[in-house]
Amino acid sequence: MIPTVEWRDGTVRLLDQSRLPEQVEVLVCRDYETVARAIREMKVRGAPAIGVTAALGVALGAQSLAEARYEEFAKAMMGICDHLAATRPTAVNLFWAIERMKRALAGLRGEPVAVIKRRLLDEAQRILEEDIAMNKAMGRHGAELIRDGQTILTHCNAGALATAGYGTALGVVRAAWEQGKKIRVLADETRPVLQGARLTAWELMQDKIPVTLITDSMAGALMRQGRIHLCLVGADRIAANGDVANKIGTYSVAVLAKAHGIPFYVAAPHSTIDLATRSGEEIPIEQRAPQEVTSVCGGAPVAPLGVDVLNPAFDVTPAEYVTAIITERGVFKPHELATRFRS
Amino acid sequence: MIPTVEWRDGTVRLLDQSRLPEQVEVLVCRDYETVARAIREMKVRGAPAIGVTAALGVALGAQSLAEARYEEFAKAMMGICDHLAATRPTAVNLFWAIERMKRALAGLRGEPVAVIKRRLLDEAQRILEEDIAMNKAMGRHGAELIRDGQTILTHCNAGALATAGYGTALGVVRAAWEQGKKIRVLADETRPVLQGARLTAWELMQDKIPVTLITDSMAGALMRQGRIHLCLVGADRIAANGDVANKIGTYSVAVLAKAHGIPFYVAAPHSTIDLATRSGEEIPIEQRAPQEVTSVCGGAPVAPLGVDVLNPAFDVTPAEYVTAIITERGVFKPHELATRFRS
Repeated sequence: MIPTVEWRDGTVRLLDQSRLPEQVEVLVCRDYETVARAIREMKVRGAPAIGVTAALGVALGAQSLAEARYEEFAKAMMGICDHLAATRPTAVNLFWAIERMKRALAGLRGEPVAVIKRRLLDEAQRILEEDIAMNKAMGRHGAELIRDGQTILTHCNAGALATAGYGTALGVVRAAWEQGKKIRVLADETRPVLQGARLTAWELMQDKIPVTLITDSMAGALMRQGRIHLCLVGADRIAANGDVANKIGTYSVAVLAKAHGIPFYVAAPHSTIDLATRSGEEIPIEQRAPQEVTSVCGGAPVAPLGVDVLNPAFDVTPAEYVTAIITERGVFKPHELATRFRS
Repeated sequence: MIPTVEWRDGTVRLLDQSRLPEQVEVLVCRDYETVARAIREMKVRGAPAIGVTAALGVALGAQSLAEARYEEFAKAMMGICDHLAATRPTAVNLFWAIERMKRALAGLRGEPVAVIKRRLLDEAQRILEEDIAMNKAMGRHGAELIRDGQTILTHCNAGALATAGYGTALGVVRAAWEQGKKIRVLADETRPVLQGARLTAWELMQDKIPVTLITDSMAGALMRQGRIHLCLVGADRIAANGDVANKIGTYSVAVLAKAHGIPFYVAAPHSTIDLATRSGEEIPIEQRAPQEVTSVCGGAPVAPLGVDVLNPAFDVTPAEYVTAIITERGVFKPHELATRFRS
């Protein structure tokens, strides 16, 4: 499978997720502005993938700078970091990755700029490699929660495509599948941007993991019929109290799961856990363009011209709806995060 | 506004709802087979509208028969009725209207066939007129449940387009609006066929009633934010115990409403109440083509080729989730229906 994001030949290469599954195209970013635009336009999406991409964007920006003195170089780097940070507000991995790059830069004060540029690229590559390693660890921990024969409801795409590889929620699915468990994923399509239909169904089919596509509206009826055994989603930001911001519609799935006595799990690396945010109420929720709702994937309009639209990209699921959070360090109750991840 | 369905110049005319809102076209049906196809292909949809259309289809079929003797005429009519009844399985109004036409036919035994043909058309026209009258009565009863300033969540389209005119759920909205109440409708788009986006938003905008379009996945988050005051939907069949079959996704809305302490109302005429069906478990649920899910309104695919799909067109909301049922005879608790509507 083509990597979601990689560094190659002095460029950042992104699998263009806005065109999947119809077209499998790689977007070659030769400057950090193109990387920023790709994040804003959701050509790359998924909290961990955004973080990795932003880190590589910072490294790419560094390579292009002509400044030879640390102070001027560092000042220009701050502008690049700010530009990349201004792309999307909700996923905390974006800010986490940029902060880590800034810390690396600060730690390299005194080194020649040429060395700093190489080290920043090394740091971004390390973020990418660690992301995959964390996903595999999450998979090992989370797979124990899935029993042979179970059907797992997913929302949005928290897969290889949402990360540097392997996936968070779908990493757990992959690990269970690799253990030989006969499982099936019910992927809800996830309007408006259809990440479930376009990305989750696609990447599971690539790996020959059984997947059935449904509309978001079908989850409740299928839960009542006993056809869903657990829910498994990713996260864009987890507050210190265990509240989870994730793709719009996640909260509905969580409420439905609770009403039917079905476990609701969130899989996320520590970079998604934001102890500086006390509760979900403090998480900024991105509002996106109405066109995502009034048409489908840039196609013909499906609603009357000029209709009023709400389009929050995320919602917050309060901790009380979350059965457990699967991390690379183990599986925790939402209220345990604050002590477990105090750095 | 163009009527949803009408008899004119010896034809049944249907506003083609499969093309709204982009194209406003009238389908002229010159034979009952075309009427049946229009119902099956959802060019006309909505339980009451299907019932009225089928009755007019029976009348249209009658006009075309050459049989001069009652027995042969009646036998041919049974074939027409069976053909129209075989179009869609869930909405009981279809069978109710066809049964009523059969009863009219049986009551006309002994009359000349030419007279019977005229009387069958009269009966179908009466079904149409009664439908509008029932909707206005429902509107009067239901409007008392809506207070000034409230926001109403709807699912699918239970409007003028789902009936011969005025609407069931949207008839209640219209009545409240006509009383001068400042209200707003949140129309969820209702995947897969998008009746909320294409039809509900369109017909409310035609009447200048404030409407905001959302995806189905947003309802839960908006309920939690206190932005939805009541839910109001139509029905395709209501069982004797008060269980309600309606468009897929209705059950999820009802569970979410209950979890947030928001009233959930169903508006439906007596022709939707099927006392012969004891509970929702006995209601046949139509499964429709996967293409409705893997593409949007016949457009380009939005899912991988060959993906497995579930596409139940309806779900059942158990009576315990229904606050009350608004009928033309008044507002009742679900468990009251069996005694109130014993014919």
